[in-house]
Amino acid sequence: MIESVFNHRSIRQYKNQKIDDKSLDLILKAASRASTTGNMQVYSVVVTQDEAIKEQLWEAHFKQDMVKQAPVVLTFVADFNRFNKWCQQRKAKPGYDNFLSFYTASIDALLAAQNAALQAEDLGLGICYLGTTTYMAKKIIDTLNLPKGVVPVTTIVVGHPSESPNLTDRLPIEGIVHYETYKDYSEEDIDRIYAEKENLDSTKSLLEENQKETLAQIFTDNRYKKEDNIVFSNMLLEVLKEQDYMNQ
Amino acid sequence: MIESVFNHRSIRQYKNQKIDDKSLDLILKAASRASTTGNMQVYSVVVTQDEAIKEQLWEAHFKQDMVKQAPVVLTFVADFNRFNKWCQQRKAKPGYDNFLSFYTASIDALLAAQNAALQAEDLGLGICYLGTTTYMAKKIIDTLNLPKGVVPVTTIVVGHPSESPNLTDRLPIEGIVHYETYKDYSEEDIDRIYAEKENLDSTKSLLEENQKETLAQIFTDNRYKKEDNIVFSNMLLEVLKEQDYMNQ
Repeated sequence: MIESVFNHRSIRQYKNQKIDDKSLDLILKAASRASTTGNMQVYSVVVTQDEAIKEQLWEAHFKQDMVKQAPVVLTFVADFNRFNKWCQQRKAKPGYDNFLSFYTASIDALLAAQNAALQAEDLGLGICYLGTTTYMAKKIIDTLNLPKGVVPVTTIVVGHPSESPNLTDRLPIEGIVHYETYKDYSEEDIDRIYAEKENLDSTKSLLEENQKETLAQIFTDNRYKKEDNIVFSNMLLEVLKEQDYMNQ
Repeated sequence: MIESVFNHRSIRQYKNQKIDDKSLDLILKAASRASTTGNMQVYSVVVTQDEAIKEQLWEAHFKQDMVKQAPVVLTFVADFNRFNKWCQQRKAKPGYDNFLSFYTASIDALLAAQNAALQAEDLGLGICYLGTTTYMAKKIIDTLNLPKGVVPVTTIVVGHPSESPNLTDRLPIEGIVHYETYKDYSEEDIDRIYAEKENLDSTKSLLEENQKETLAQIFTDNRYKKEDNIVFSNMLLEVLKEQDYMNQ
């Protein structure tokens, strides 16, 4: 049983303490051992520790304080740029400027990110994924000087935790697993699967705070709104075009 | 140091031996502990062990024998279907039928997949990722009865290894890591980064076998061809439309 898998908590408060180079190297090495499509390694990791650049990343990531607090920000990027350059120097014509290639490179980047996250936690460090990476891809591209063929996919902040939150609730396993084929959910299934989450004390106080009738409304009306999703979808698709991944 | 991170090999040959239920449950539990966007868990895992359904998946995955040989096939799917149903039952209007939501759900599915893969390896089992999942998404949707809002993202086969391959080569860490911001690669950088890979004995025999001048040509001309990428890009984008993820 891998301890850092089962003990994972997202950490959003960090001590003012650097990560030693040996730990950082091990985290990056862990990333590099992840499965990768055809062993092409079509991703890169940008390690940002400089305060001024972190400040710009903080702006991009909706000014979430953990981006400034954590000593290290790791941006995982889908990257066919290096591979394309290699092909061009070796009398080979790359054909990786399309959506499939972008998605393939995203998969590579995400498996590497999860290896890095777990290895960091195994060292006693804390991490948190930043979903804002895809919303604000354009600003991150500008901040990190990402050339064509490179798109930010996810970010983790890494540092020494200064909080120790409880394990987060998850849906019961039966709620996310299907045997043999997908069995669609009945009304009763949905009620059963979400019951525990809906009955948490934290859910009750959330409803009160936000003056909402159901937890689902907090997601649809406050946290992940349709109008924002549409704006960010179009921005992300525009970024894919600009970064030369939509020629199919 | 997480052993299964650093000892990972893709396993393509499996013993004719089932995985016990306790191990399978632990693997699925590991998946469920991965970071997930806003704790929405917008993914599912389809566990296929039935021979007839595995045979159809084998067809989808370019008839790679490991799909039949391995006792368990885990298909990780981006899944807003469950969440949407929950919203609708709770007087909330979901706005997750767009590209950003698909990509968000893909991230969830991939982090869960990597947790499952590492936990399986920690139990002494072997795994292999199947990149064919996105190429053949439509056929997998049909085989696994995936409703709208559900798209296959990746697959791992899991079983008892009957081979023990060497660790696969990787680019040197400096080849995939950038400090502070992205430093684009010079010709000399590319030569240096790819030197080890290009000088492997396995590369030399591959060139001879395929009658190619450079390793890069084996990727562009044989393994990941532009014309195939274009076909699969269009198929995947079509799938996203059909599964109701392209309304932005």
